[in-house]
Amino acid sequence: MKQNNCGARTIMEILIINDQILPLCDAPSACLDRGTFFGDGVYEVLRSYNGKIFALKEHLERFSQSLAAVEITGIDVEQIRQRVLQAYAAAGISNARIYFHATRGSAPREHSWDSNLKPNFLLMVTQLSDETEHKTKGIAVSAHPDWRWKRCDIKSLNLLANVLARRQAAKKSCAEAILVDDQGLITEGASSAFFAIIDGRLQTAPLTANILPSITRKYVIKAAAELGLEIVRNSLSYKQALEADELFIAATTQDIVPVVHFDDKTIGTGRPGKATLLLMEKFRSYVL
Amino acid sequence: MKQNNCGARTIMEILIINDQILPLCDAPSACLDRGTFFGDGVYEVLRSYNGKIFALKEHLERFSQSLAAVEITGIDVEQIRQRVLQAYAAAGISNARIYFHATRGSAPREHSWDSNLKPNFLLMVTQLSDETEHKTKGIAVSAHPDWRWKRCDIKSLNLLANVLARRQAAKKSCAEAILVDDQGLITEGASSAFFAIIDGRLQTAPLTANILPSITRKYVIKAAAELGLEIVRNSLSYKQALEADELFIAATTQDIVPVVHFDDKTIGTGRPGKATLLLMEKFRSYVL
Repeated sequence: MKQNNCGARTIMEILIINDQILPLCDAPSACLDRGTFFGDGVYEVLRSYNGKIFALKEHLERFSQSLAAVEITGIDVEQIRQRVLQAYAAAGISNARIYFHATRGSAPREHSWDSNLKPNFLLMVTQLSDETEHKTKGIAVSAHPDWRWKRCDIKSLNLLANVLARRQAAKKSCAEAILVDDQGLITEGASSAFFAIIDGRLQTAPLTANILPSITRKYVIKAAAELGLEIVRNSLSYKQALEADELFIAATTQDIVPVVHFDDKTIGTGRPGKATLLLMEKFRSYVL
Repeated sequence: MKQNNCGARTIMEILIINDQILPLCDAPSACLDRGTFFGDGVYEVLRSYNGKIFALKEHLERFSQSLAAVEITGIDVEQIRQRVLQAYAAAGISNARIYFHATRGSAPREHSWDSNLKPNFLLMVTQLSDETEHKTKGIAVSAHPDWRWKRCDIKSLNLLANVLARRQAAKKSCAEAILVDDQGLITEGASSAFFAIIDGRLQTAPLTANILPSITRKYVIKAAAELGLEIVRNSLSYKQALEADELFIAATTQDIVPVVHFDDKTIGTGRPGKATLLLMEKFRSYVL
């Protein structure tokens, strides 16, 4: 795990990690990760339902696309599939969150990179927290300007805008921040896709460079189609969303979560809406 | 350096780091850095000239502002000043690059954070590469869409847009990418401020949320004022820049670097311009 840059140097390059001072050539590889210096990596989050991993194939496909988009090479996606299965089996967690990322590798900090750099890989299997109350009662959300970069179609480690938006939401006791662009249009949640039911139709933003191609979104749209709901792929304005009959978010770890308050506005009756409940039931049939 | 989350759990949370599988509770702290998960941290780069650190006070001030903007607390900036001096003395490098960052700390990945989280700090003192040729002959640059987030006034670790822009520039044998926004206006370089000389005036973008408040920029403007140049703080269009009399970039590690080619266009005579050379000479008087 040591950097291999100790050569016959006449000067001494120096590193401080927290309180520890050492020669740079003795730096642990993890401290020189381009993931930290630049957010130079991509990730996935998936989950299991009652012992069964959901949509692994789709997550691996999207991961491949993210790797290609940022030109990270040398990752064997089939090997990642094996690691997911191995770690999941070792954990023995029925309802688990499975997170993994690959960064471009470890090297002294320079924007440019050596094409021989070996990517770093990290995977975690953790217990999902119980969000039953969120799903049965619905959540409150609040709006935040969409400060993210212009390639949100790439699932990258550049997530500070999401973290800060979520922080502001939490200060208002809201479970999610809904991101609003310069035109007053909703893109998506800080870590979720965003949906409205208006006059019996399901509306959500179209997939553009500002939107993550959410796998859960795909299954929500499939569920809506199977329930005979018309699907409208048009961005919602903030004002439209406040006036919607029903709102919900969708994310890998919790799938569909009803939204019953948006800033100062109560949505519908203040309880999960009928169409939302039908979609949740249909979604359950895919995962169990 | 171990995470302290090994409790009386009945299930086993699992981590894989590259090829190694281990219980999450044995994870090295560096592998759970929010800097990697989210780019949740801020940084500075400064340099020394012939044994003298330049503009340390200004860099520490900007660092404080970055920390406040992302609500990272528990960093003693005076202690960082001491660490910079300690590491610089230990390195004994005359012309050094000094990089440091603070991340929000290490914890299992969640967008939200515990207010007791202890920040991680890293500092590196490395040898500056010799860029004499860049400064004497000038460089070629190329345009790239500005994909960065909307708070570039914060010097954060979310730098993937910068890395990718620089990569595209390097493929065209260009030393820097010049970022162009949706309106066709130049914001700045991927890791530099951008300047034009047009009809004897110095023009650069005004400081907004899209622009890093560059310390080198401040000294360039000071130099221009002392040379009697009129200063125009107006964003340049891409087209205007191509037609400029002179162009240059400015960054901490190299201060002023003349730009003599921009995409397919030769700027001025294809050699560093007169006003640029005067500014370089004036700048040298501040640092030596």
